[in-house]
Amino acid sequence: MSKIVCFGEIMLRLAPPGYQRFTQADTFEAVYGGGEANVAVSLANFGLEASYITKIPNNPIGQSAINELRRYGVDTCEILRGGQRLGIYFLEKGASQRASVVVYDRKYSSISEVKLGEFDWGRIFKGAKWFHFTGITPALSKAAADVTMEAAKAAKKLGITVSCDLNYRKNLWTPDEAGKVMSGLMPYVDLCIANEEDAEKVFGIKADETEVSEGKLSHEAYKQVAKKLKDKFSFKKVAITLRESMSADDNIWSGMLYDGENYHFSQKYDIHIVDRVGGGDSFAAGLIYGMMRDMTDMESLEFAVAASCLKHSIEGDANHVSAAEVKALMGGDASGRVKR
Amino acid sequence: MSKIVCFGEIMLRLAPPGYQRFTQADTFEAVYGGGEANVAVSLANFGLEASYITKIPNNPIGQSAINELRRYGVDTCEILRGGQRLGIYFLEKGASQRASVVVYDRKYSSISEVKLGEFDWGRIFKGAKWFHFTGITPALSKAAADVTMEAAKAAKKLGITVSCDLNYRKNLWTPDEAGKVMSGLMPYVDLCIANEEDAEKVFGIKADETEVSEGKLSHEAYKQVAKKLKDKFSFKKVAITLRESMSADDNIWSGMLYDGENYHFSQKYDIHIVDRVGGGDSFAAGLIYGMMRDMTDMESLEFAVAASCLKHSIEGDANHVSAAEVKALMGGDASGRVKR
Amino acid sequence: MSKIVCFGEIMLRLAPPGYQRFTQADTFEAVYGGGEANVAVSLANFGLEASYITKIPNNPIGQSAINELRRYGVDTCEILRGGQRLGIYFLEKGASQRASVVVYDRKYSSISEVKLGEFDWGRIFKGAKWFHFTGITPALSKAAADVTMEAAKAAKKLGITVSCDLNYRKNLWTPDEAGKVMSGLMPYVDLCIANEEDAEKVFGIKADETEVSEGKLSHEAYKQVAKKLKDKFSFKKVAITLRESMSADDNIWSGMLYDGENYHFSQKYDIHIVDRVGGGDSFAAGLIYGMMRDMTDMESLEFAVAASCLKHSIEGDANHVSAAEVKALMGGDASGRVKR
Amino acid sequence: MSKIVCFGEIMLRLAPPGYQRFTQADTFEAVYGGGEANVAVSLANFGLEASYITKIPNNPIGQSAINELRRYGVDTCEILRGGQRLGIYFLEKGASQRASVVVYDRKYSSISEVKLGEFDWGRIFKGAKWFHFTGITPALSKAAADVTMEAAKAAKKLGITVSCDLNYRKNLWTPDEAGKVMSGLMPYVDLCIANEEDAEKVFGIKADETEVSEGKLSHEAYKQVAKKLKDKFSFKKVAITLRESMSADDNIWSGMLYDGENYHFSQKYDIHIVDRVGGGDSFAAGLIYGMMRDMTDMESLEFAVAASCLKHSIEGDANHVSAAEVKALMGGDASGRVKR
Amino acid sequence: MSKIVCFGEIMLRLAPPGYQRFTQADTFEAVYGGGEANVAVSLANFGLEASYITKIPNNPIGQSAINELRRYGVDTCEILRGGQRLGIYFLEKGASQRASVVVYDRKYSSISEVKLGEFDWGRIFKGAKWFHFTGITPALSKAAADVTMEAAKAAKKLGITVSCDLNYRKNLWTPDEAGKVMSGLMPYVDLCIANEEDAEKVFGIKADETEVSEGKLSHEAYKQVAKKLKDKFSFKKVAITLRESMSADDNIWSGMLYDGENYHFSQKYDIHIVDRVGGGDSFAAGLIYGMMRDMTDMESLEFAVAASCLKHSIEGDANHVSAAEVKALMGGDASGRVKR
Amino acid sequence: MSKIVCFGEIMLRLAPPGYQRFTQADTFEAVYGGGEANVAVSLANFGLEASYITKIPNNPIGQSAINELRRYGVDTCEILRGGQRLGIYFLEKGASQRASVVVYDRKYSSISEVKLGEFDWGRIFKGAKWFHFTGITPALSKAAADVTMEAAKAAKKLGITVSCDLNYRKNLWTPDEAGKVMSGLMPYVDLCIANEEDAEKVFGIKADETEVSEGKLSHEAYKQVAKKLKDKFSFKKVAITLRESMSADDNIWSGMLYDGENYHFSQKYDIHIVDRVGGGDSFAAGLIYGMMRDMTDMESLEFAVAASCLKHSIEGDANHVSAAEVKALMGGDASGRVKR
Repeated sequence: MSKIVCFGEIMLRLAPPGYQRFTQADTFEAVYGGGEANVAVSLANFGLEASYITKIPNNPIGQSAINELRRYGVDTCEILRGGQRLGIYFLEKGASQRASVVVYDRKYSSISEVKLGEFDWGRIFKGAKWFHFTGITPALSKAAADVTMEAAKAAKKLGITVSCDLNYRKNLWTPDEAGKVMSGLMPYVDLCIANEEDAEKVFGIKADETEVSEGKLSHEAYKQVAKKLKDKFSFKKVAITLRESMSADDNIWSGMLYDGENYHFSQKYDIHIVDRVGGGDSFAAGLIYGMMRDMTDMESLEFAVAASCLKHSIEGDANHVSAAEVKALMGGDASGRVKR
Repeated sequence: MSKIVCFGEIMLRLAPPGYQRFTQADTFEAVYGGGEANVAVSLANFGLEASYITKIPNNPIGQSAINELRRYGVDTCEILRGGQRLGIYFLEKGASQRASVVVYDRKYSSISEVKLGEFDWGRIFKGAKWFHFTGITPALSKAAADVTMEAAKAAKKLGITVSCDLNYRKNLWTPDEAGKVMSGLMPYVDLCIANEEDAEKVFGIKADETEVSEGKLSHEAYKQVAKKLKDKFSFKKVAITLRESMSADDNIWSGMLYDGENYHFSQKYDIHIVDRVGGGDSFAAGLIYGMMRDMTDMESLEFAVAASCLKHSIEGDANHVSAAEVKALMGGDASGRVKR
Repeated sequence: MSKIVCFGEIMLRLAPPGYQRFTQADTFEAVYGGGEANVAVSLANFGLEASYITKIPNNPIGQSAINELRRYGVDTCEILRGGQRLGIYFLEKGASQRASVVVYDRKYSSISEVKLGEFDWGRIFKGAKWFHFTGITPALSKAAADVTMEAAKAAKKLGITVSCDLNYRKNLWTPDEAGKVMSGLMPYVDLCIANEEDAEKVFGIKADETEVSEGKLSHEAYKQVAKKLKDKFSFKKVAITLRESMSADDNIWSGMLYDGENYHFSQKYDIHIVDRVGGGDSFAAGLIYGMMRDMTDMESLEFAVAASCLKHSIEGDANHVSAAEVKALMGGDASGRVKR
Repeated sequence: MSKIVCFGEIMLRLAPPGYQRFTQADTFEAVYGGGEANVAVSLANFGLEASYITKIPNNPIGQSAINELRRYGVDTCEILRGGQRLGIYFLEKGASQRASVVVYDRKYSSISEVKLGEFDWGRIFKGAKWFHFTGITPALSKAAADVTMEAAKAAKKLGITVSCDLNYRKNLWTPDEAGKVMSGLMPYVDLCIANEEDAEKVFGIKADETEVSEGKLSHEAYKQVAKKLKDKFSFKKVAITLRESMSADDNIWSGMLYDGENYHFSQKYDIHIVDRVGGGDSFAAGLIYGMMRDMTDMESLEFAVAASCLKHSIEGDANHVSAAEVKALMGGDASGRVKR
Repeated sequence: MSKIVCFGEIMLRLAPPGYQRFTQADTFEAVYGGGEANVAVSLANFGLEASYITKIPNNPIGQSAINELRRYGVDTCEILRGGQRLGIYFLEKGASQRASVVVYDRKYSSISEVKLGEFDWGRIFKGAKWFHFTGITPALSKAAADVTMEAAKAAKKLGITVSCDLNYRKNLWTPDEAGKVMSGLMPYVDLCIANEEDAEKVFGIKADETEVSEGKLSHEAYKQVAKKLKDKFSFKKVAITLRESMSADDNIWSGMLYDGENYHFSQKYDIHIVDRVGGGDSFAAGLIYGMMRDMTDMESLEFAVAASCLKHSIEGDANHVSAAEVKALMGGDASGRVKR
Repeated sequence: MSKIVCFGEIMLRLAPPGYQRFTQADTFEAVYGGGEANVAVSLANFGLEASYITKIPNNPIGQSAINELRRYGVDTCEILRGGQRLGIYFLEKGASQRASVVVYDRKYSSISEVKLGEFDWGRIFKGAKWFHFTGITPALSKAAADVTMEAAKAAKKLGITVSCDLNYRKNLWTPDEAGKVMSGLMPYVDLCIANEEDAEKVFGIKADETEVSEGKLSHEAYKQVAKKLKDKFSFKKVAITLRESMSADDNIWSGMLYDGENYHFSQKYDIHIVDRVGGGDSFAAGLIYGMMRDMTDMESLEFAVAASCLKHSIEGDANHVSAAEVKALMGGDASGRVKR
């Protein structure tokens, strides 16, 4: 079998139950997640062999994060133990016109203080066909950026396909900082995943006609962004997620994939949201699955969009759906009828 | 007062809280329900005298099922105690494009292993005006089918009105098996309740023009189905529920009633779903209530559809609304304004 | 700083979790709220100095009500302790076509048996710029009505701006009784807040063309109501909330403000409801905030409508949003995108 | 079969989860109970026919109280609907040296405002062999006391055995008031149940040597109290519960029964408490069961003490144990070994 | 590294929260456990490589059982998928004199219908040093007994140490049936684990002087039992757990180990119980750990008893403690002081 | 009125429900607490004016901490907003022989990075009679130690009584570091509170004969420790808490107070523990209350011990009992009888 390696952080996510605001809460629901960990869990749920690489503190909270990964079948053997703390993020779920709020408390996490040479990339990549990382990890710290580079280079050298989700986070760094670091990493990337905001914030690449503030998305604009991205960094493929936010409850969701020749646009889904965190991660996992399974680009894209459509109906960060469930939705069964 | 007798199974339903998937759950919400039990509870909530007939194991889980029925005022005096186990079904609630999932663990239940002669139908039907059963019970086992027949014949003999909800369950039997058994039972039935799928699966009676997969329902098609059903088995009346599934959250719901002469179509309700299990059962209960209360056919139908519309907003299997609440909705008050 | 004084009741609200009906519940979620208390909490959340005046029994349940007010920064120093009991109301949350149900158990509450002279209004109003009360308090009892009058007169005498939300409650009094008592209070009121029902029920002032039962609201009709109200009682301003109830889940919400010259109509919000109790109170708090902060009438109205729009996404009676969050929504950010 | 009729109040009990204090709670666990209702539920759980008589408001909270009684098999057909409200009591569970706290909010309850002649005692007592009431009901109001007298007289006239648990409640009346009213009722009572405090508070009958404040109980003293009680009112039998409170968690529990000749003392149980509310009620139910089942006095007493011992391990007001479970404990099986 | 293989069932355990009785519950807490699975989880928590062998239905409930094992690090690669259902058991937690109650609903489980040859024991035992099973599995069915024998023989042949916990379950078979089947299996066993009841029920081997009903345990008696067991089946070692049940809350716990020469008795622990299910399984896991780690017999026994002492403070079936925590208790730190 | 000022940290405490271990938890119960904050809340609950001084991040999690303090009546006006994060600690509740486990994640908290001069001690101490701090705050960082010194000096200068609870935390600093810093602070302290461990760890002052590991406490030894402490730093008074840990559930608790002349020993309490965190803090609060209320030393000590005895029965960090409840326990009412 062929393995996918994901590298990044895993955090403790603490969310008040239901629609409570932080100031009303006296319990928090706890799950463990993070951009790349969500991809790994999703891939394991699809039945692929996914291995997660990170550093986690040597305490019971860290152990709980590992247990959550193991529970869903992710290989955790190469995770390092040590450092100061597990990153935390607090999530307050929005509704209607009230947006979800995220409070980060992720500084000084073990992975952000990792050092070059701590991971044995040779052993980690043994048997691997794919390596995935995101723009969040290099944003954590200089150290994390260095180790990301170390990993990307090692993967490239071994002929492993590399994907990166740009995932710009304004709380972690400025566009300038992001641009500098990410530009260094891009030469090692085959598949670049982004949303229109990411491309602009990180590389100043802009969808001329798109006005996101109006929530209207122009196909033409996305083609431009994808093409500019590809041309600049010689990616093999560029994928973009297209989210139209009508409210915190209702989104329209689709995606596009540019293979250097054709621009594929997926169908659109009207989504009633249960939990939208990790939507982009589940899209990335869907794309990787499709490509690992040798689907056509169009099929991979539709699989990715259907998978991430379903993610919005799932509690927590990660996408707990099977490949069969995704294919059923791709096949048109969106009626939500009871399966018995 | 005049009694309604319902006969069938009652199961323990176990559902993860909220929108959790099975693999995420570490608690299950427990209610007790089943197609015919739901009808009995709904009728008791309307203020009628409803008696439930089943067999339940002689252990505390069985006792809890009886307590749930008693709690809502259903007469449980004639329920038999014994047998191996209470049937269980696991329910995972869907959302948006993700369908609800039902996992049955109902084999070897006490009622499925009941024997001819165990129930004293003479005593059970004393004072009864109506007998209701569904196509689920005879699907459980040969034994259960035999006892259903025994009950239907006894009711008929006593001049009691008999209703049957076809309720085809593909996990329990094949269309062939269903057709054979149900055809034997139909001669004892006055009111037949179905959805378009039931009629086709059980009797091969098909709505020519309807294409359910497209979610579009044609009035003409339903008329055909109803007429063919009536003609084949000489029912007094045939009722059909019409569900258009836009998503796991949103359905359009209505019904039709054919009395041999006229085809009545009810108004349509756009429903935002809380819990759709038992929707059909609450429709059956509404029809029975209307007819027991000597409403016109049109009124009975509208009552049944309004009642089952409200069911979709109620947690659990059974419909916990009063007749007054149903009538208020029939009267046009669908605005959901706070009642204080 | 300048203080706002709110006077009225605070009750224990007991609600089954989620969408359970009363007869299904075996736990109740407890919050403490009431029309005027909700205004005070909302104002404190906006950062203003709000003082709440009421009478609360001298037991731990009463203490819990005080603690809830303190928790959100409301000044509770002038609250009296004593009397028989804290009023209670039970709330069952509706969904789709099923309306929310409120069961009042508020008779004999401490505030309803308060006596003239118990409150030291001179001390209470020291430093105050605004006094707010509603039509609920005088409806509680003759005693409560007398003390409300006592307070209104004291405020007026000190040159404090007085606002009143008519808030007609049919369970507490008849239109006749309401009309008599409220007419006596109105001369002390500067800003009158109402919905079309209030004006009709309390003062017989009717929106000729409006047919609320059809859920359609005519601007012209509201202008008439506002004008008639102002003309009758010489209010400085009249504000009306406009709710269109599509279902228990979905409302359209807006407001109008008449300053004697111009009729301002706010934008409309399509709301997916989390908890609509206290929607009107949060509108009142928004208006008071705007006027205390010297916004224009149009700005105050838009602030009030945006604030109360957000309230519908908040669990509990009170509006837990900051002024900054309201302004962001006024500024057009209604997309509900995650803030991180 | 022979019926037991219990008459009194049923209240909504609201308790913070676990060991939270009132001021920490934001949910309340809800059960429905009351001294006489607890006896009825316990008897129904033992398999006897128990009928409960009370008056309950005509709202969903009242309906929920009825449902709770029905759930455990109590006959509720003769319960009146009407009046103002269901009584409420708040319960804060103690631990170690911290005592449980009860806050009553039971004034103006429907049963406290019942009128003479509202109940049809002839119909109620048809087929009954036993009538049970407590000293709580006459303490509620003059009206409730009058109706209690009406019931006691009717029972006596029909030759029905009458039991009364003195149950003095200092929040409801003074010893003087209690003495006067209870003295009038005692001539109709066959079996009097009390604790040492009750006898002293209600009738001034005192256990000379007992010093309860020291938590030491003298057999001799209890004999005196029982004898004085019997001599004064010509009871057939007098039963006394003996509680030694080591802490809120640990009690020693036993009982005595005086039949006019012999003083029976039961064995003692060291109890680790789950919920001690309703301990005395479960003792009364045990005694009634034993006597209805023609046990010897000693057996009845041991059954009553064992039953109420088990009650202390049960959540809620009522005793949810079967007669078989009580007999197993009487038989010496107190080891708490898993039954599988 | 050297692997331990455990073979048996894993069930869904459903327990009402806290001390609720079954008839009071409307939620169940769900964990997955079973005698041998608990041993595997405990060993994985100690840091050993544990592999679990069973058959689990191919549905999401089965998947959840696998996920629970994976979460705690048990190797699940050789678990078969298929069959009818996952066994269920309902657990009601006792308190004080009220015993815990177990209701089994485990018939027709996938593992009980497994067939000879379905497992590839050669592959399963590759690298294994220890094989553990219990008397529960052969009690499930003839099929399960046959496969247990197949496994035991395969293990023996490969020179793997075999341990068996007799674990007599009276709901599953009679002493006669047990004796016959277990006698056939014993020749393959090196380490036999039992309690005094097991030995008597399964093999008629009795501790002459012990009277368990009095809760008193005689060292002499246990020596006799151990010796007779060893002599009859030529075990290498015999271990016996010694439980004195004071109540459902309080037990005294110790153990003994007989190596053919010496009788080792461990220290005794006064235990305040959180959850006693799986106490014996955690003892077995402790013994296996000690022996795999080459502790002396006395050390292994003390480790096993300390481990299982801690288990009684852990919610669920399995023992979630580390080897370091067990050693700290062995070292005398039983004060329960906060570790910070 | 006279104010007490407490200075230190307040943290978010996250604890799995009930007795779950961290690795089993998927929700955390959240309260906000910390050594000095607990003293402030306890004093406010006693009815005194308590002001809390700390620095808290400017985000909703920080706001929630402030709200918790306000809820119980603590003055929060002088709390600074800013810095990086709110400290967190994870608490796993022990049972029987399993100890509670605390995982600190408190580094980089806002208060640990506070700077000299940020607080306006002149304004803070206006009207204050007492200043309380603990050895935890100076252990957080050099910065926090400096600001503690700044505060202590300011208090001393203004003639305010100063108390310090040594509270040695081995995770925060070494005995050497502690000794150096604390020795500098002690000259400003009037009342020193400690346990035997604190004195030894911080100042090397040892109770010669006491062997804590055996859980036996010698009065003579504590006298020595108290005298040595007083002699070394010229404290006015020295108080020591005496905890004997039988298990995580059961402790014996008492205290002593040395006023330079007499050694007062309090009565002992056998405690069954609900939550022992904050036990020492509630003792400190009790002492301060007694002294502020001019009790004798013996009374103050007994009040402090009774208060902290009750704390062990309260969920959360802080002591939610009234002064009247403490006095009732001092008066001998430890029976835990229901108060109704």
